[in-house]
Amino acid sequence: MGAGNLRINEARLWDSLMEMAQIGTTPKGGVKRLALSAEDMAGRALFARWCEAAGCTVRVDAAGNMFARREGRDPSRPPVLMGSHLDSQPTGGRFDGALGVLAGLEVLRVLQEAGVETEAPIELVNWTDEEGARFGRAMIGSGIWAGQLDAAEAKALRDAGGMTFGAALDAAGARGDAPARPFPADSYFELHIEQGPILERAGRRIGIVTGAQAQLWLRATVIGRDSHAGTTPPSARRDALAGAARMVLAVQRIMREAGEDGRGTVGALTVLPGSPNVIPGEVRFTVEFRNPSEAVVAAQAGRFRAEAEAIAAEERLELAIEERFRIPAQPFDPACVALVRDAAARLGLSAMEIVSGAGHDAVHVAAVVPSAMIFVPCRDGLSHNEAESIEPGEAADGAAVLLEAVLARAGRVG
Amino acid sequence: MGAGNLRINEARLWDSLMEMAQIGTTPKGGVKRLALSAEDMAGRALFARWCEAAGCTVRVDAAGNMFARREGRDPSRPPVLMGSHLDSQPTGGRFDGALGVLAGLEVLRVLQEAGVETEAPIELVNWTDEEGARFGRAMIGSGIWAGQLDAAEAKALRDAGGMTFGAALDAAGARGDAPARPFPADSYFELHIEQGPILERAGRRIGIVTGAQAQLWLRATVIGRDSHAGTTPPSARRDALAGAARMVLAVQRIMREAGEDGRGTVGALTVLPGSPNVIPGEVRFTVEFRNPSEAVVAAQAGRFRAEAEAIAAEERLELAIEERFRIPAQPFDPACVALVRDAAARLGLSAMEIVSGAGHDAVHVAAVVPSAMIFVPCRDGLSHNEAESIEPGEAADGAAVLLEAVLARAGRVG
Repeated sequence: MGAGNLRINEARLWDSLMEMAQIGTTPKGGVKRLALSAEDMAGRALFARWCEAAGCTVRVDAAGNMFARREGRDPSRPPVLMGSHLDSQPTGGRFDGALGVLAGLEVLRVLQEAGVETEAPIELVNWTDEEGARFGRAMIGSGIWAGQLDAAEAKALRDAGGMTFGAALDAAGARGDAPARPFPADSYFELHIEQGPILERAGRRIGIVTGAQAQLWLRATVIGRDSHAGTTPPSARRDALAGAARMVLAVQRIMREAGEDGRGTVGALTVLPGSPNVIPGEVRFTVEFRNPSEAVVAAQAGRFRAEAEAIAAEERLELAIEERFRIPAQPFDPACVALVRDAAARLGLSAMEIVSGAGHDAVHVAAVVPSAMIFVPCRDGLSHNEAESIEPGEAADGAAVLLEAVLARAGRVG
Repeated sequence: MGAGNLRINEARLWDSLMEMAQIGTTPKGGVKRLALSAEDMAGRALFARWCEAAGCTVRVDAAGNMFARREGRDPSRPPVLMGSHLDSQPTGGRFDGALGVLAGLEVLRVLQEAGVETEAPIELVNWTDEEGARFGRAMIGSGIWAGQLDAAEAKALRDAGGMTFGAALDAAGARGDAPARPFPADSYFELHIEQGPILERAGRRIGIVTGAQAQLWLRATVIGRDSHAGTTPPSARRDALAGAARMVLAVQRIMREAGEDGRGTVGALTVLPGSPNVIPGEVRFTVEFRNPSEAVVAAQAGRFRAEAEAIAAEERLELAIEERFRIPAQPFDPACVALVRDAAARLGLSAMEIVSGAGHDAVHVAAVVPSAMIFVPCRDGLSHNEAESIEPGEAADGAAVLLEAVLARAGRVG
């Protein structure tokens, strides 16, 4: 009942990845396919053509999510879903998202080529705007579909040019007729690059993803007083950057105390007025903590608040800390996770359990459909970067595990 | 031979300051008169009208510097100069620069009203682009005039829109016929707000400025590796911001060790890519040290380099530090400084010696003409800020000292 004699075509999968990477290719060898941009639309069109050629029918929902359906022997059975996303960061890599979509396409092609029928239908999904690089919120399409993100709120999100997500869907012609809400589905499998160094360091080929980390995001504003750098003596300074620098180091310290599971990042920081000879009067920065445990991120955020407030008091600064959002830890479905584990074992691929540090469409989908993810290593753990890199064999190994898991759920006929 | 019965008209001076502040007025009560903007040109036109009404002839040089000449009994004598600048920061105050120009105008009006003749001519100067807010370099007009700044280099400086200083001079119609180079002058006096808190804290009305601080400006670039905030464990991070934060604190520490004379500022800092969920791969920031002693700023900069390099090595970051420029300490002319001291004493105004922490046109002019400056306090030491504030009586006191000093050099006839 498993994949048996079926084999992933490593060269075909790689060629498809490279062809997709030509759309929005950047001078440094990465891709720029911002959600609903001309490049994204070109990628979506290519995806639809490839899926139709693989014998699927493609439908699009009101959030722009694309579902390529390969009919099952019993069309009434809930489909087995697989997928990921084709949009990218502004200076993104060739594999983040694209690997999961095109490995799913390779699964469909293998089945078509071998004339394999499955009991349940299989649907390959390209979720709209996973990256969040354009409208400031990640995993929009899967969030709307899974009811984890209010559709009206999502459609009102604006990009830097002031265009809303809703208007961009229409302008691009990406809005479809199907309702953007969950339909009965058997399961969901998503293959993705790890985007971190853990598998590579451990020398494992496959990550059996047991769930996703809890996240807690904060925004801090530090107010001092902007004054002249040449005329203001030390005792009269209220330097917002001097205070913010101490707070950045507090985030580092809190992260390190959680050991190798610790994640604490100040990723964006803006200094105002930002002139070389003006003592900064205001600094705004983001903080995010992640951990497999929600209790740990809550405690980390609490400790950061306390330390930052103490620093602000010492430096005579005002401080406001706003919680932007929390994402609870999302465990994946044990039965689906077990299928990934079994598939890796059957294929003789070294594997280890791992918790996803990044958000993924699967995290939203898991709220309504039994889900699991498969990770493959990427060079130096590098992602969200044009230099993101994997080997063809790694892509094929991940696709082989995906094929096994999907076939096990969908049920091979005969 | 002094000012004798002559009295500054406090209300008239204040009214002129307030009328000038209407040009480019900002919602928060400051001014925006960027050099060679429409607002600056309107301010310059008003200045010319007022000077002509006060019996002066106005000439403009090739750098846009405006000289309003009140003829002396002996036109062949080198004129006594006074002045400052009418351009402002983007969110500047009403007094930075304007006080020195309009106090000079008040001096001319007092002399005209009383029919006082002087031996030497008196010239009131409005220097072009003191602030440096538009073309990225401060004290351009006085720098060109005094030969401290190469005219060709200055004219090639570009604003954010790509327009050069030279093109902006022509576009605004601000370029005059007189050559922009030093002519024989007896002396130069510049009244300015302190732009710091020292006089106010000491409860003194007048600052006898003995010279200007040495400055040394650096630009630092810290390179780490941008990577995913959720997937990169502490041991794999090369966080450019974590390193830069420690470097910012090193600047603070080095500044504080110089006591109340210490000046060390990181005013601009940019984080790349600047996304909440990406560990910063690059941080660029400015550093400037100032001190009355050149040896001290050189030692501070050397220590900063050493500490920053040690931090970069510890944090596995690359670091480049570039010296942008040094401005040597500029002592003012002892005889001119003595006239300021004497004038304050004669007027019964509390005074103290002070070193200018800011750059001023007088610092350039002092290289070719015996010069001195007069400071008056400003509220909370606040400047380069729309909330910059002084009292009418403080403006008048400063103008009275200026009148005494200028008359002492120009020689009252009869």
